[in-house]
Amino acid sequence: MHSIQQYQEFVLEYLKAQHCVREPKNLYEPIHYILELGGKRMRPVLTLMSAEIFDSEYTKALPAALAVEVFHNFSLIHDDIMDDAPLRRGNVTVHEKWNINTGILSGDAMLILAYQYFEHYKPVIFRDLAKLFSKTALEVCEGQQWDVDFETRSDVTILEYLKMIEYKTAVLVAAALKMGAIVAQTSAENGDLIYDFGLNLGLAFQLQDDYLDAFGDPATFGKQVGGDIIENKKTYLYLKAIEFASSEEKNQLVQLFSVSLEDNTSKIEAVKTIFNTTGASKATQQAIQDYTLKAFATLDKMNISSDKKELLKAFGEKLMNRNV
Amino acid sequence: MHSIQQYQEFVLEYLKAQHCVREPKNLYEPIHYILELGGKRMRPVLTLMSAEIFDSEYTKALPAALAVEVFHNFSLIHDDIMDDAPLRRGNVTVHEKWNINTGILSGDAMLILAYQYFEHYKPVIFRDLAKLFSKTALEVCEGQQWDVDFETRSDVTILEYLKMIEYKTAVLVAAALKMGAIVAQTSAENGDLIYDFGLNLGLAFQLQDDYLDAFGDPATFGKQVGGDIIENKKTYLYLKAIEFASSEEKNQLVQLFSVSLEDNTSKIEAVKTIFNTTGASKATQQAIQDYTLKAFATLDKMNISSDKKELLKAFGEKLMNRNV
Repeated sequence: MHSIQQYQEFVLEYLKAQHCVREPKNLYEPIHYILELGGKRMRPVLTLMSAEIFDSEYTKALPAALAVEVFHNFSLIHDDIMDDAPLRRGNVTVHEKWNINTGILSGDAMLILAYQYFEHYKPVIFRDLAKLFSKTALEVCEGQQWDVDFETRSDVTILEYLKMIEYKTAVLVAAALKMGAIVAQTSAENGDLIYDFGLNLGLAFQLQDDYLDAFGDPATFGKQVGGDIIENKKTYLYLKAIEFASSEEKNQLVQLFSVSLEDNTSKIEAVKTIFNTTGASKATQQAIQDYTLKAFATLDKMNISSDKKELLKAFGEKLMNRNV
Repeated sequence: MHSIQQYQEFVLEYLKAQHCVREPKNLYEPIHYILELGGKRMRPVLTLMSAEIFDSEYTKALPAALAVEVFHNFSLIHDDIMDDAPLRRGNVTVHEKWNINTGILSGDAMLILAYQYFEHYKPVIFRDLAKLFSKTALEVCEGQQWDVDFETRSDVTILEYLKMIEYKTAVLVAAALKMGAIVAQTSAENGDLIYDFGLNLGLAFQLQDDYLDAFGDPATFGKQVGGDIIENKKTYLYLKAIEFASSEEKNQLVQLFSVSLEDNTSKIEAVKTIFNTTGASKATQQAIQDYTLKAFATLDKMNISSDKKELLKAFGEKLMNRNV
């Protein structure tokens, strides 16, 4: 086994080896641009780690790992167009640096390139990987659509919200891990268990993202703290607050979430106060812990050595402490 | 074997059988909308026909045929966004009926759905189909990018133009036919030959499209005659005219292609006159015939009965007479 940092280096090395000058430039340059913007490479790292956990060499899993990373970046390009986002990882987004048409077309090409990485595998593994990948990719699209739909709905339930973040975020983490299991040709049971581990960890991670967006340390969170509140996003915190609120608090919250302001300082403070007084903050922290523990409980059922279980647990803990 | 009309009916029937109510509606409704707008279903028909030519039943080829049709419609949605097109097959385009974000996301989902149709096949065939599909889909993206790039270039060569239409149009016709061959598990040689047949027929078809755009009968062409001239598109006709033109004609043509007018009647007439006097029209007709004959010559090398060769030839002739 290797360390997370080593896996990150393996991913980067393999990514760099792919880089060849390919025409037309206007199609391929944006692809290199986004892939080289950085990021933690969490998903491909999980694929490599999973492969080694199930007794394969990480090198065998590199193409599958890259497929996941390329797909993830495809979804970022298209999401950034839809959200009209100017920045990604502190850099100009693809559609801002080039234009929307380039963002659409380069994104499309990346989705296809992701599938092509599976051609490194023999037919049975190719089919298993591509099948899981298609299912997952479609769920990510569905999750994105739910997210868009929720913006204009006022009756989103907690259950619907959880399904949305499951599809938009958690399934890809789960699939990244399961792909390592497929490459390693471990038992179907192990594959399903590592998928569940990833799904629950992904849910915990996204809920924590919601939490930190309001209560995180601006110095370490990476994104603008209060961003969701400024954009009136109905996150887990908001939905829990609405559930627990007195009718007065509810009116106040709905009112606060109906405006767009120039200066959001007092709005952010007021909303955070309601998140705290209603118990929504506590409930969110509780949910994060529940999903994390659920993820760890899945490890116990897995047919692998205990030191490998510890490794996955350590990764989960590192991830939840945001110092991967 | 069946008639073209019968194959069209089989495609339509299979397409209708896929239609189930799937959530989120805002993702899947645009997909049903574009798939049910009609069109000649030329590409999936070719897949079914090819499967039967190589002694398989057409039913076995239905999922592969649908994959091609779904991919083709995905590319139409995204191209229509890029071209800012208001109409498709006489109906409102997806991004006009919904919005650009819906067009992007539903298109993405269609690309994934296309791959999922290959899951109907056993691993080896799945892999062969998906591999050919990925290669083709990437070429279509590259062709679209070249097309976009050519808009702002004044030094496009005939060879570059032919490569562009090969990628943007012909490779999908070729791949549709080869997929039938893959499903039928015929020899690799037959697969390559039917691919070449499709590639040359596709090139002839696209060059004819260029020709008819200027010289077609408005009653039967389906699109606005003179559309390419109005948009200053550097088609085969234009590039050949520039190649053959006297310096006076060349200046006149470049001048005509540098303006956007309210009333294009006289511009269209002037350009068509130059296309004729330079010999560009004749050269285009010649190229169409050359590619058609090249396609038919490929048939002779194929290891199939002569009545089946006649059938493919009849399809080619029907297609070139635009009464499929």
